[in-house]
Amino acid sequence: MTDVWQSVMDHAVAVARRAGDVVRAALRDERTVMTKTSSVDLVTQTDQKVEKLIIQSVKEKFPTHRFIGEESVAAGEACDLTDSPTWIIDPIDGTTNFVHAFPFVAVSIGFSVNKQMEFGVVYSCLEDKMFTARRGKGAFCNGSPLQVSAQEDIKQSIIATEFGSSRDPEAVDHIFSSLRSILCIPVHGVRGAGTAAINMCLVASGCVEAYYEIGIHVWDVAAGSLIVSEAGGVLMDVDGGVVDLMSRRIIAANNRNVAERIIKEISSFSPARDDPWKLTD
Amino acid sequence: MTDVWQSVMDHAVAVARRAGDVVRAALRDERTVMTKTSSVDLVTQTDQKVEKLIIQSVKEKFPTHRFIGEESVAAGEACDLTDSPTWIIDPIDGTTNFVHAFPFVAVSIGFSVNKQMEFGVVYSCLEDKMFTARRGKGAFCNGSPLQVSAQEDIKQSIIATEFGSSRDPEAVDHIFSSLRSILCIPVHGVRGAGTAAINMCLVASGCVEAYYEIGIHVWDVAAGSLIVSEAGGVLMDVDGGVVDLMSRRIIAANNRNVAERIIKEISSFSPARDDPWKLTD
Repeated sequence: MTDVWQSVMDHAVAVARRAGDVVRAALRDERTVMTKTSSVDLVTQTDQKVEKLIIQSVKEKFPTHRFIGEESVAAGEACDLTDSPTWIIDPIDGTTNFVHAFPFVAVSIGFSVNKQMEFGVVYSCLEDKMFTARRGKGAFCNGSPLQVSAQEDIKQSIIATEFGSSRDPEAVDHIFSSLRSILCIPVHGVRGAGTAAINMCLVASGCVEAYYEIGIHVWDVAAGSLIVSEAGGVLMDVDGGVVDLMSRRIIAANNRNVAERIIKEISSFSPARDDPWKLTD
Repeated sequence: MTDVWQSVMDHAVAVARRAGDVVRAALRDERTVMTKTSSVDLVTQTDQKVEKLIIQSVKEKFPTHRFIGEESVAAGEACDLTDSPTWIIDPIDGTTNFVHAFPFVAVSIGFSVNKQMEFGVVYSCLEDKMFTARRGKGAFCNGSPLQVSAQEDIKQSIIATEFGSSRDPEAVDHIFSSLRSILCIPVHGVRGAGTAAINMCLVASGCVEAYYEIGIHVWDVAAGSLIVSEAGGVLMDVDGGVVDLMSRRIIAANNRNVAERIIKEISSFSPARDDPWKLTD
């Protein structure tokens, strides 16, 4: 039974690579057109095209599987994580980067069964780096094993986070307050790739010690969360509790010491959940 | 006379590539050792080794040329920009990135004559991208011509900046105040590669519309400044005046509209100049 999902994962890697081809082709051919129609939270034709490509190819091969996709949810489909085998898809994580050809753009595909991630695939298209993790079998980049940083001292750490797309003053207050407190611990530096998926792969690769963000969605972090934990890292809620991928809050770190030190400085808040009806269950 | 400096530039490109080899080898072999000795403003053995490599190879070939190098200045040499042909060198721009193997690390070499930049070379070692510009002859990445973004609307722009290495509360106040005002214009996003040289190459490449920072040094921006202007961009002081590479303040943008809109939001301050005696001349 241990390899029951391996062929599904092989399909995910293959389709992520095809999706990456579409992303790169779009950047080459269509970028000028797209920049004219953009806004802070960009939804492009390429996003939708890539999500359809992934979902159609999966439906042909695994007709009983379910989906949570950024574009499908935006189009009105339910964002409901059940026990069924479910593909959690962000066709282009880093849409703003994509529109600007900023070098971090990812296809993110997570796969969950019984609400547990079985595998995660993040393809950083412009870097041509394929990050993969299978539950219990480690995390890899282009086939080489990944290991989080061994750093225990927050003062020797780089922390990744994002400003997010909300410009609501209260959210911005929280974001700036947390950022300043963390910077002045002090830490080595603060970075942000502009995509949650790649920020998490940077944690898994040991290039940054931790990543935290409030406001992300399940499709941004599903794949990355398994890549971090399989590389030896930890996942927590920003208040220190158990991580909940539907809560739109996450901290992914190389170890508990670093995570808990960051948590002390985070001014937390709670955006509407990805599954808001769950609160009234 | 127009090509009088071309052979010097050819040498700069060749030595930047050799320097990049040393940087990559150090990352492969010595990273574990270095992380144990680091602090916010990291000065590593590799920095010094790379600067010596560059300076020695230039001295052999062009014995009358002068130098301004980050490591030489740190060791007590004067940071004096004269009319003489002068190499302005940052052996590793992005030292914090380097220690963490974060993917943006650059060798930056500018060359000035009569206080005017004649060429600039920025080698992004881990991406293997060689950015070059020769005065009046355009800017290139791996031989392909660069062009800044055509975007005129700040709200459709990505702005690059850094938190810098100072944790002085007053400087941090200015940095956060500027950042928040710019974010809430609103802009598409704020990014920071962790190196001034690469941030400027991102402006030249059209991936971000502008980069600004207070606290950088002449060796961080000398090469990048020519790459931006040869790609069609503009350079200004953060208060809107003429840029002064020794003043530790810069804005590099795709055009004046974007630069002037950002300048309105910057809470400026003046760190000690790279040539502090100049103020009393």
